Amino acid sequence: MKKILIVGGVAGGATTAARLRRLDEESQIVMFERGEYISFANCGLPYYIGEIIPQRDALLVQTVDGMSERFNMDIRNLSEVTAINREKKTVTVKNLKLGTTYEERYDVLVLSPGANPIKPPIKGLDEADNVFTLRNIPDTDAIKAHVDNKKPKSAVVIGGGFIGVEMAENLVHRGIKVTLVEMADQIMAPFDSEMVSILHKHVTDMGVELILSDGVSYFDQKGTKIGLNSGKVLDTELTILSIGVRPENELAKSSGLELGERGHIKVDQNMMTSDPNIYAIGDAIETIDYIYNEPAMVPLAWPANKQGRIVADRICGIDSKYPGTLGTSIAKVFDLTAASTGHNEKALARLGKTNYKTIHIHPGSHAGYYPGAFPISLKLIFEVPSGKILGAQGIGYDGVDKRIDVIATAIKGNLTVRDITNLELAYAPPYSSAKDPVNMAGYVASNILDGLVDVVYYNEIDKLIADGGLLIDVREPMEREMGFIEGSINIPLHEIRERLDEIPKDKELYVSCQVGLRGYLAARILKQHGYNVKNLDGGYKTYSDVYG
Amino acid sequence: MKKILIVGGVAGGATTAARLRRLDEESQIVMFERGEYISFANCGLPYYIGEIIPQRDALLVQTVDGMSERFNMDIRNLSEVTAINREKKTVTVKNLKLGTTYEERYDVLVLSPGANPIKPPIKGLDEADNVFTLRNIPDTDAIKAHVDNKKPKSAVVIGGGFIGVEMAENLVHRGIKVTLVEMADQIMAPFDSEMVSILHKHVTDMGVELILSDGVSYFDQKGTKIGLNSGKVLDTELTILSIGVRPENELAKSSGLELGERGHIKVDQNMMTSDPNIYAIGDAIETIDYIYNEPAMVPLAWPANKQGRIVADRICGIDSKYPGTLGTSIAKVFDLTAASTGHNEKALARLGKTNYKTIHIHPGSHAGYYPGAFPISLKLIFEVPSGKILGAQGIGYDGVDKRIDVIATAIKGNLTVRDITNLELAYAPPYSSAKDPVNMAGYVASNILDGLVDVVYYNEIDKLIADGGLLIDVREPMEREMGFIEGSINIPLHEIRERLDEIPKDKELYVSCQVGLRGYLAARILKQHGYNVKNLDGGYKTYSDVYG
Ligand SMILES: Cc1cc2nc3c(=O)[nH]c(=O)nc-3n(C[C@H](O)[C@H](O)[C@H](O)COP(=O)(O)OP(=O)(O)OC[C@H]3O[C@@H](n4cnc5c(N)ncnc54)[C@H](O)[C@@H]3O)c2cc1C
Ligand SMILES: Cc1cc2nc3c(=O)[nH]c(=O)nc-3n(C[C@H](O)[C@H](O)[C@H](O)COP(=O)(O)OP(=O)(O)OC[C@H]3O[C@@H](n4cnc5c(N)ncnc54)[C@H](O)[C@@H]3O)c2cc1C
Ligand SMILES: CC(C)(COP(=O)(O)OP(=O)(O)OC[C@H]1O[C@@H](n2cnc3c(N)ncnc32)[C@H](O)[C@@H]1OP(=O)(O)O)[C@@H](O)C(=O)NCCC(=O)NCCS
Ligand SMILES: CC(C)(COP(=O)(O)OP(=O)(O)OC[C@H]1O[C@@H](n2cnc3c(N)ncnc32)[C@H](O)[C@@H]1OP(=O)(O)O)[C@@H](O)C(=O)NCCC(=O)NCCS
Repeated sequence: MKKILIVGGVAGGATTAARLRRLDEESQIVMFERGEYISFANCGLPYYIGEIIPQRDALLVQTVDGMSERFNMDIRNLSEVTAINREKKTVTVKNLKLGTTYEERYDVLVLSPGANPIKPPIKGLDEADNVFTLRNIPDTDAIKAHVDNKKPKSAVVIGGGFIGVEMAENLVHRGIKVTLVEMADQIMAPFDSEMVSILHKHVTDMGVELILSDGVSYFDQKGTKIGLNSGKVLDTELTILSIGVRPENELAKSSGLELGERGHIKVDQNMMTSDPNIYAIGDAIETIDYIYNEPAMVPLAWPANKQGRIVADRICGIDSKYPGTLGTSIAKVFDLTAASTGHNEKALARLGKTNYKTIHIHPGSHAGYYPGAFPISLKLIFEVPSGKILGAQGIGYDGVDKRIDVIATAIKGNLTVRDITNLELAYAPPYSSAKDPVNMAGYVASNILDGLVDVVYYNEIDKLIADGGLLIDVREPMEREMGFIEGSINIPLHEIRERLDEIPKDKELYVSCQVGLRGYLAARILKQHGYNVKNLDGGYKTYSDVYG
Repeated sequence: MKKILIVGGVAGGATTAARLRRLDEESQIVMFERGEYISFANCGLPYYIGEIIPQRDALLVQTVDGMSERFNMDIRNLSEVTAINREKKTVTVKNLKLGTTYEERYDVLVLSPGANPIKPPIKGLDEADNVFTLRNIPDTDAIKAHVDNKKPKSAVVIGGGFIGVEMAENLVHRGIKVTLVEMADQIMAPFDSEMVSILHKHVTDMGVELILSDGVSYFDQKGTKIGLNSGKVLDTELTILSIGVRPENELAKSSGLELGERGHIKVDQNMMTSDPNIYAIGDAIETIDYIYNEPAMVPLAWPANKQGRIVADRICGIDSKYPGTLGTSIAKVFDLTAASTGHNEKALARLGKTNYKTIHIHPGSHAGYYPGAFPISLKLIFEVPSGKILGAQGIGYDGVDKRIDVIATAIKGNLTVRDITNLELAYAPPYSSAKDPVNMAGYVASNILDGLVDVVYYNEIDKLIADGGLLIDVREPMEREMGFIEGSINIPLHEIRERLDEIPKDKELYVSCQVGLRGYLAARILKQHGYNVKNLDGGYKTYSDVYG
């Protein structure tokens, strides 16, 4: 009878344990969890604080008793594994209720210890009694109690990642005035800057004060004052510190398991660590990215769950392998949905990749003539000349999750931008258009690959005009009243064939419209009349998202 | 200069014309449309009648003037092409305004004439003045005028396909009592019977009187009485005849183009007819199905649009090919969404395929602990033993379109049921679960392929019990109060390990629960204790959808 020990009883650990038991009634399974609760819904915590999720119980997906009974396993909560004794194949466990310590033998050890919120040694932090991090149920209880009892009117969220932004939203939902401070020049790292502009505007519209490119220098007066690097001082009654997580790697490190550069536990595609009797999964590990096989650390629930199932399979002799992480992610940002998959341009730059192009389109979430359609801002990044899809980002009020999921699926199916024009997606007016936004992204990208049109980008056009290029805005005069690119001239699309003689042949020529479609039509006309012309990708919409 | 004539100015025709002009400024493009309007939103027509779409103008995606100007083409509406003279490479055109007839020469001819509502020679139909079909703007105007002016209190919709069901919904929305008569034993042919049960219940709940397995025998009293085959007589103030469409094939037939068995124009993967100078696309053609390369006739907007673009490419020397039609489709059915892709079991039976299995699951549209989640009834059909995905059907209040689109994409990426467990889909609580419903479908199907569990189906279990099999319902006693399968005994899942001695080893053994998950857990336990056991696929939910 095999004895399997699992460290960590939430996303990765509990999933491993459940699948293990399904595969094998006989083996002995012991799951250790430092905290009181196992198998809770980490991802729901902000929404319980915001009272979107009304019942605390709803967060507890499984209880120690329920899971022990259903899966016939030995679950020890309030039990911290403090050491791995690899030679002996034992772990040292501290019973946090009793304060006692004991050793437990294993045949196989699975580590799913997760990650910890980063708490840097900022001056005054230790004296502050209103600064919280959010990882588990006790953290949640503490924040919720502070909100319920102290009824803060103002709060500061430090860090604009997913959890920071979700907390900002939920605190606003509780009637609190929120200031969001972010060290980088943008929130929500998975998005490139022109995409995130949309989010910056939206969170600001929703009443959040956004402070970018600034960080916390010190806390003062028990945390009620926060000094920023810029010299600015903020008043706060509640502060959420959400500047990222650090892998929980103490056990692995002290027992000499191989770690990655940033301290994550290294595993192979079987989730095996450098010790063949020890597997590791979840937020604590370094795996590979699906697209380039580069090291990837993606602390999200899907990988943890998936990897947990794989480990269980492997322990039971089933040859499952982890294909690497694509990094698909999503967040509700007030009324918007922001989702992405694969790499963004920042990541490509870090990896030194330059053989790619991007497109930006703004198709409706469904047919425009059916009520309730909203534009989706969709960015697609693809390899040149192969057309391989490297990543996508979508932001909008509706239908964003669907399009990113379809693209994530296309990537796993090795479909190129040409292939996604062939995706036969469900169309009726309330759901999509006869050419779905994903088809459309494929068309627009393929046209570039095929040389039917050349494009320039939102961040290039101003300089090109300044350098003497001519930009023709092919929208209707009325549309220009809402804003236009400085230096552009106006020839509406439907007049362009008649007004060719007004267009000089000796200038660098560019065209633009509202979203890129009419610019493309104009570019095709001009190109066939011998002009060397480029269309402004994403049109005035993408340009004004950034500069408007 | 090439001269291209296009017959039909809506989905397929207008799309061909637009892409043609983008590719080629020079060629002469003439588009003939019999009706007054081109490029209208066929799919929006029911919703305009229902006043969900308030503005008639919204249906007109392009006008003759607007499109002529933008695309510099010769658009002739109210112009019917009455003959193709293939030897001369001309068509005969009748100007319906003037009543005149002329010939027009072509280098390439594109046919996108669509399809016509079937109007069988039913007794009394010609005398009826309240019976309508719905295909175009004049049809729409006539129905809407009848509703607006005559204010009917009751209506009969004949035919329960997509258009019939959409019309039923929209007439109900106008306050009309609707009876839906369908000749088959189910509405919405893309769905298998156990899935469509959910729709039958819902449309009935929404106030529609549903008459299945019955057809119209005669109309009487100017159409205000409808006699059915069963002898039943219905009173009606408005009747919509929507029993299907027939390809508009007169031109093709009279000019000797090759037709398929059911009268559709035959084309190859280049959309070329049996005459190399003539292409055909859209509802009028027979193409191949993506999965088995069998003949396929799918009168939907995506194929028409896609094929239009392909024809334009080919005419301009670009090597685009049509990969065949998957048949992805979707409809809003009152508050439900019903979507499908690939083949259903009825189609597989017709094709003589038996090497497949199905699963039925009912996962939440998003995490259960986040408000607003609804179960999705999801059916997946997969080849055995390859795991190739053959089709999927989904019905639910939310998130159905996304899952069917993901599966349609997976099919195009040649992903198997095992591969879809690896799809990394966007997860945050408002959008999905850490294991998305599509992942879950993959897991459930893979477990069957891997022999981890055997299943029986909703339509087999009653007989198996009658034949002496033992069904153990592993739900909690309280759940059985809401209904259970006759003849089953109850041992809750968490007691099963202790009560093994109650379970006979000499009987055919089955387990069931609410949706299949706990049944699976029980089956795994029993199997490992030496029982030969099968789990009821889809649980009591699927069973009671049909028999409940
Ligand atoms: C507020 C919040 C919101 C989130 N939202 C999302 C989201 O929307 N989408 C998404 O994909 N992901 C989200 N995540 C991330 C997701 O929850 C994690 O990626 C996932 O839980 C990681 O699983 P894990 O098993 O690695 O770690 P965890 O689920 O954190 O489990 C690790 C457990 O191990 C225990 N442990 C650690 N060391 C020891 C030890 N030595 N002995 C005993 N026990 C130990 C810890 O106490 C912890 O309970 C969110 C996370 C948080 C905190
Ligand atoms: C009410 C309704 C709802 C629908 N809903 C959906 C939906 O939700 N999703 C979906 O995918 N599909 C839907 N469809 C189907 C979709 O509209 C068709 O599949 C699509 O329009 C087919 O394109 P087509 O070019 O082949 O035919 P059409 O778009 O019908 O165009 C054919 C045109 O050719 C003209 N024509 C025919 N013969 C001649 C001739 N000899 N000379 C000149 N002109 C001629 C006709 O007048 C017609 O206007 C719906 C259809 C209807 C009627
Ligand atoms: C609750 C928890 C222990 C469940 O683990 P689990 O049993 O693997 O997951 P589920 O309850 O979703 O069940 C999935 C299993 O049921 C099977 N299943 C699901 N629906 C089924 C159905 N209708 N019929 C048959 N089998 C079904 C699946 O195939 C899968 O079994 P497998 O892995 O052996 O193939 C674990 O996911 C957990 O702790 N979650 C909370 C923590 C967390 O994930 N946090 C991050 C997100 S907030
Ligand atoms: C209106 C109609 C003529 C438009 O045809 P179309 O021009 O091919 O289609 P769209 O307006 O959607 O434009 C698509 C083109 O613009 C390009 N495009 C779209 N968005 C773009 C953007 N943001 N930037 C650059 N190019 C863009 C696409 O690449 C595509 O061009 P391509 O085919 O050369 O690659 C035709 O679709 C029609 O008649 N529709 C109504 C009838 C119908 O379809 N009915 C059934 C459904 S209700």
